[in-house]
Amino acid sequence: MRKRIEAQFLQYVKKMMGYHEAISLMYWDLRTGAPRKGVEQRAEVIGLLSEEVFQMSTSEEMAAFIAKLSAKEVYEQLGEVTQHTLNECQKEYERNKKIPADEYKAYVMLCSKAESVWEEAKAAADFARFRPYLEQIIDFQRRFIGYWGHEGHPYNTLLDQYEPGMTVELLDALFNQLRERIVPLVQAISAAKGRPDTSFLFAPFPKEKQRAFLLELLPELGYDFGKGRLDETVHPFAIGLNPNDVRITTRYDERDFRTAIFGTIHECGHALYEQHISETLVGTPLCGGASMGIHESQSLFFENMIGRHKSFWKRHYPRLAQYAPTQFAGVSLDAFYRAINEAKPSLIRIEADELTYPLHIIIRYEIEKQLFAGEIEAADLPDVWNEKYEQYLGIRPHNDAVGVLQDVHWSGGSFGYFPSYALGYMYAAQFKQALEKELDMARLLEEGNIAPIREWLTEHIHRFGKTKKPLDLVRDATGEPLNAEHLIRYLEEKYQAIYRL
Amino acid sequence: MRKRIEAQFLQYVKKMMGYHEAISLMYWDLRTGAPRKGVEQRAEVIGLLSEEVFQMSTSEEMAAFIAKLSAKEVYEQLGEVTQHTLNECQKEYERNKKIPADEYKAYVMLCSKAESVWEEAKAAADFARFRPYLEQIIDFQRRFIGYWGHEGHPYNTLLDQYEPGMTVELLDALFNQLRERIVPLVQAISAAKGRPDTSFLFAPFPKEKQRAFLLELLPELGYDFGKGRLDETVHPFAIGLNPNDVRITTRYDERDFRTAIFGTIHECGHALYEQHISETLVGTPLCGGASMGIHESQSLFFENMIGRHKSFWKRHYPRLAQYAPTQFAGVSLDAFYRAINEAKPSLIRIEADELTYPLHIIIRYEIEKQLFAGEIEAADLPDVWNEKYEQYLGIRPHNDAVGVLQDVHWSGGSFGYFPSYALGYMYAAQFKQALEKELDMARLLEEGNIAPIREWLTEHIHRFGKTKKPLDLVRDATGEPLNAEHLIRYLEEKYQAIYRL
Repeated sequence: MRKRIEAQFLQYVKKMMGYHEAISLMYWDLRTGAPRKGVEQRAEVIGLLSEEVFQMSTSEEMAAFIAKLSAKEVYEQLGEVTQHTLNECQKEYERNKKIPADEYKAYVMLCSKAESVWEEAKAAADFARFRPYLEQIIDFQRRFIGYWGHEGHPYNTLLDQYEPGMTVELLDALFNQLRERIVPLVQAISAAKGRPDTSFLFAPFPKEKQRAFLLELLPELGYDFGKGRLDETVHPFAIGLNPNDVRITTRYDERDFRTAIFGTIHECGHALYEQHISETLVGTPLCGGASMGIHESQSLFFENMIGRHKSFWKRHYPRLAQYAPTQFAGVSLDAFYRAINEAKPSLIRIEADELTYPLHIIIRYEIEKQLFAGEIEAADLPDVWNEKYEQYLGIRPHNDAVGVLQDVHWSGGSFGYFPSYALGYMYAAQFKQALEKELDMARLLEEGNIAPIREWLTEHIHRFGKTKKPLDLVRDATGEPLNAEHLIRYLEEKYQAIYRL
Repeated sequence: MRKRIEAQFLQYVKKMMGYHEAISLMYWDLRTGAPRKGVEQRAEVIGLLSEEVFQMSTSEEMAAFIAKLSAKEVYEQLGEVTQHTLNECQKEYERNKKIPADEYKAYVMLCSKAESVWEEAKAAADFARFRPYLEQIIDFQRRFIGYWGHEGHPYNTLLDQYEPGMTVELLDALFNQLRERIVPLVQAISAAKGRPDTSFLFAPFPKEKQRAFLLELLPELGYDFGKGRLDETVHPFAIGLNPNDVRITTRYDERDFRTAIFGTIHECGHALYEQHISETLVGTPLCGGASMGIHESQSLFFENMIGRHKSFWKRHYPRLAQYAPTQFAGVSLDAFYRAINEAKPSLIRIEADELTYPLHIIIRYEIEKQLFAGEIEAADLPDVWNEKYEQYLGIRPHNDAVGVLQDVHWSGGSFGYFPSYALGYMYAAQFKQALEKELDMARLLEEGNIAPIREWLTEHIHRFGKTKKPLDLVRDATGEPLNAEHLIRYLEEKYQAIYRL
């Protein structure tokens, strides 16, 4: 009886995940080359399947599975994968059921309208146009927190959506520490005399040559083309359809090879995660990253800790130079290394370097936290935003397009999402520190022997999928709780050397 | 009340069709570039969605829709699209429900095994190995005919699956007429002295050049790249995901440019059909070709009546020659035209030319008909096959690999399918004859003005999708019943000229 229901439940979930895989493929296809005129009908089909998955996640059948399987004496006898799957389904069920259906529908409609208004407002650098929508979205989110409940700070409930277990109490300590040490470092660098020469970065580098370099590089990083492919899109991404089909995309800029090279190494980091999730989790909601931040830790680890490491380029720079010989003529490895690690305060988050990036996130975190504590309102945002940029980064946006309107997230109601980006940096640095106790990263990178590094990540992170919460994963992998000190030390050492402070 | 049920029914069907679109995209993806190692899991997802569609087509909900909507006084008030949709669903429901579920399952398992046995048997040219499977498949099909019932010849029931309304009585008359006139023509050609010189066809023609030629040609044929794309596969195909997303694939042979050029024009004919089905039929089972034979008529019309027309090459030959100048140096338009229209008896159906192709089909038709009349058994097939090839084409297979084992169809139980190929030729020739009463095809082809031809086909064929039965479509489009004489005259005139008989 218990076994039969367990099997039925797993079959039911497998179907949901199958639909999800079909949706993901349609999403990938739309972005990589679906015929333009077919998009509208395809969007309908995606909507139809998404609605089916949503209905299955909140159906009476799902409610019955949860009721029957979560009874203590039954739950204890379930397989471990079933237990985790049930927990995920229950969490999802409760999240979705607690909001009145009419209210949720109104909210979805508001967001879909808000995104296009945000686009217009950003184009016109006119916050006032977006403000009424943002106010309503914040109101909805505040009510949702009421429905969902919260422990401690109301914002905790939003954080938990993207980073299970994360709280304001934890983040305040981590981010304050980070801010206090990075702000002076950024100031020192801004005043430094020994700035890298970056002029050679912008010489023309033909797209086909960039692609050829990447097709050689990716397998060496451990990306298995038998389980993936590389395509071209406006906005690069990685997408895991299943662990044996994880695709990446990139964008080529012929006047700045860094876009494709570092962008692809970044997506490769995401993809390696998905390619190495245990196959026992296929067909369950556990077959994905532990959290948005842990996922980002893997892409950042590859992009920065590997892809911007001097030893990595000791091996690859001569080969890169073969693809664009005139561009790099007379540029030493050291000059190259310093140029690709240039750091400077800037206004736009997505263009920021690894040193200043966390400050962009901390600003957003502090603002969101105040919003959901009721300390500020939408109308206050431009001023609060500009003040913080001036204070932390030493530059002030000259309009809202390059200020408070720059990111799409809030127009879609994604509050609580931003902190994951900075957590990704902290996780990555802490993983690096633990990994280096066992492995000589510099030597391995010089040898082009990435396998032991990738295997360490798989052993401690990838294979678990969503079966471990992010903070447990970090503690188990590194032997200590999440600690901002690792990122701080990594940044200090690296940038003091590069800027000869 | 009627309106509400009608709307619910259409919504239900739309969902099935949405799943179908998702399945089609996954199918396309598997063939064009899905990572090799992800295939197994993707096949599972396809199976899962296919099963869902099958269950929806035979569910109690579907039975209730059929019962409520097919009552005479309700049916008469339904919209025309709903009426046709209901008819299709009812036909499908009855087909699927009449076979006991266990028996159908055993049959599906048999076929899936049979296909791999067939592959081995073909590789070893060993019919005996495949025979026991073929016997069982024939037994199943004979029993299915019993469940489904039949009017006239038992084989009619199988024909109707692919070509609604087609019967042995009609086909006997059409195919006998065709055979009696084509066999002597093939004999005359085999004996003819003035054979075309084809040696220049096999010079190397780089793939990129072939592709470049096709990318210019396809839009001129009316193929809209805003609604499609061209990819490369081992076995070329066209697939309509919806009328605004109809993709084609091709295969390049650098030692025989005909493979890609004529193959692509063929698939383009299929695609133009799907791109021009009325959008009012999207989301219903009517949004597809009227039958397999009508679909083939469109691909053959483009491949042969347009793509192998002298006037077409009068325009395009100079351009083709620019892509491979040495290959065509000294080859006149007339010599080129004769070479690409070479006809000669051969053993393999899929390599046959337009003149001998119908004979390959007639042989298979006669054999299938005898099988389901109980006049012959599986064991008799190799002898019967070889006899007929000798009699109609004047050549005898030296083993079963190039004889009775050459086609995959029977291993999948697709009896009744072959006649559609020859019907496609007959339909195409009859459409051509009707179209030429209104349009000067030769002149339009010389001018590269295909639009009026494509519009004629859309007006009389494409737009109706599956709302008309094939024989009605032919009669309405051409003003007379299906008539083999049009194909015969087309072939006689063309090949007497080419072979200077």
